[in-house]
Amino acid sequence: MVETIILRYGHRLVRDDRVTTHCCLVARAFGASKIIIEGAPDKEIAGSVGAVNLKWGTGITVEFTQNWKNALKELKKDGFLVVHLTMYGEEVNRKIDDLRKKEKIAVVIGSQKVPCEIYAQSDYNISIGNQPHSEIAALAVFLDRLFDGKQFDRKFPGGTIEIIPNPKGKAFKEQN
Amino acid sequence: MVETIILRYGHRLVRDDRVTTHCCLVARAFGASKIIIEGAPDKEIAGSVGAVNLKWGTGITVEFTQNWKNALKELKKDGFLVVHLTMYGEEVNRKIDDLRKKEKIAVVIGSQKVPCEIYAQSDYNISIGNQPHSEIAALAVFLDRLFDGKQFDRKFPGGTIEIIPNPKGKAFKEQN
Repeated sequence: MVETIILRYGHRLVRDDRVTTHCCLVARAFGASKIIIEGAPDKEIAGSVGAVNLKWGTGITVEFTQNWKNALKELKKDGFLVVHLTMYGEEVNRKIDDLRKKEKIAVVIGSQKVPCEIYAQSDYNISIGNQPHSEIAALAVFLDRLFDGKQFDRKFPGGTIEIIPNPKGKAFKEQN
Repeated sequence: MVETIILRYGHRLVRDDRVTTHCCLVARAFGASKIIIEGAPDKEIAGSVGAVNLKWGTGITVEFTQNWKNALKELKKDGFLVVHLTMYGEEVNRKIDDLRKKEKIAVVIGSQKVPCEIYAQSDYNISIGNQPHSEIAALAVFLDRLFDGKQFDRKFPGGTIEIIPNPKGKAFKEQN
């Protein structure tokens, strides 16, 4: 499995809370190990993700940084290939087979307009579609493709609830 | 190509504007023809999607309904198979090949907690992952799977801007 860390550029306190929380939960559900959020530490988000980890099992860790350049530099130093998701990039269909062979990938997703420097510093600029859509969607489709639908096989240890897939309603196992 | 309409359950004015807009843009970019939003008509959303259609080419149409039951009934009468996306459902990996053979699919996505009746009335309840994530993500992955990555081949006629995929920056054709 490719080790995957997400870098969320340009999170704005309050305004982006909900969308960034969706990004965190997608990153967690689809198998990233960490999300680094550029912006002031945000208790709302840390709390929401913490609560999900507690109930549904340990997944992603959340960090904040005030300096995306340093964060990116550190990731590169640690051997992460940098993949920036942008509708202006190359088609995911053409590149995903190469990316699956990598060991460590840092996925950069924007919120506000992303500076040119991120395009330049990324090893790959990859599009999930060439029409405006959503960074949440881009991240989900990218991870689904990268891990080839293996989100169902992942273990999230220590949770108190686990879903039993069901064609007609809700079913789960719950521990107290 | 499967004809696809999205039904967004439980949209709340203002509170859900941004997430619902992401849903609309995902539906548009990944090839759905229409999104029906349950809730009071919301000018913000209609305006945002209208502006994207104008600039990037004609894609999805947006409708509002105050009555999801009627909307679902109409869709069924028009021959749409109803697929509800929920983390409690059956694995998409096991069902997607069957669904690709259908002619018309109505995809139901929630916002607020979805009533049991939607589970019961849907032909399929499908999970994109069995962990909490995001309806935006679920919709994107489902449509990406349904259309097998064909979002890059779709035409959006009449726009003034078109992206030229680029590995290191932004490139596009623009008409004035």
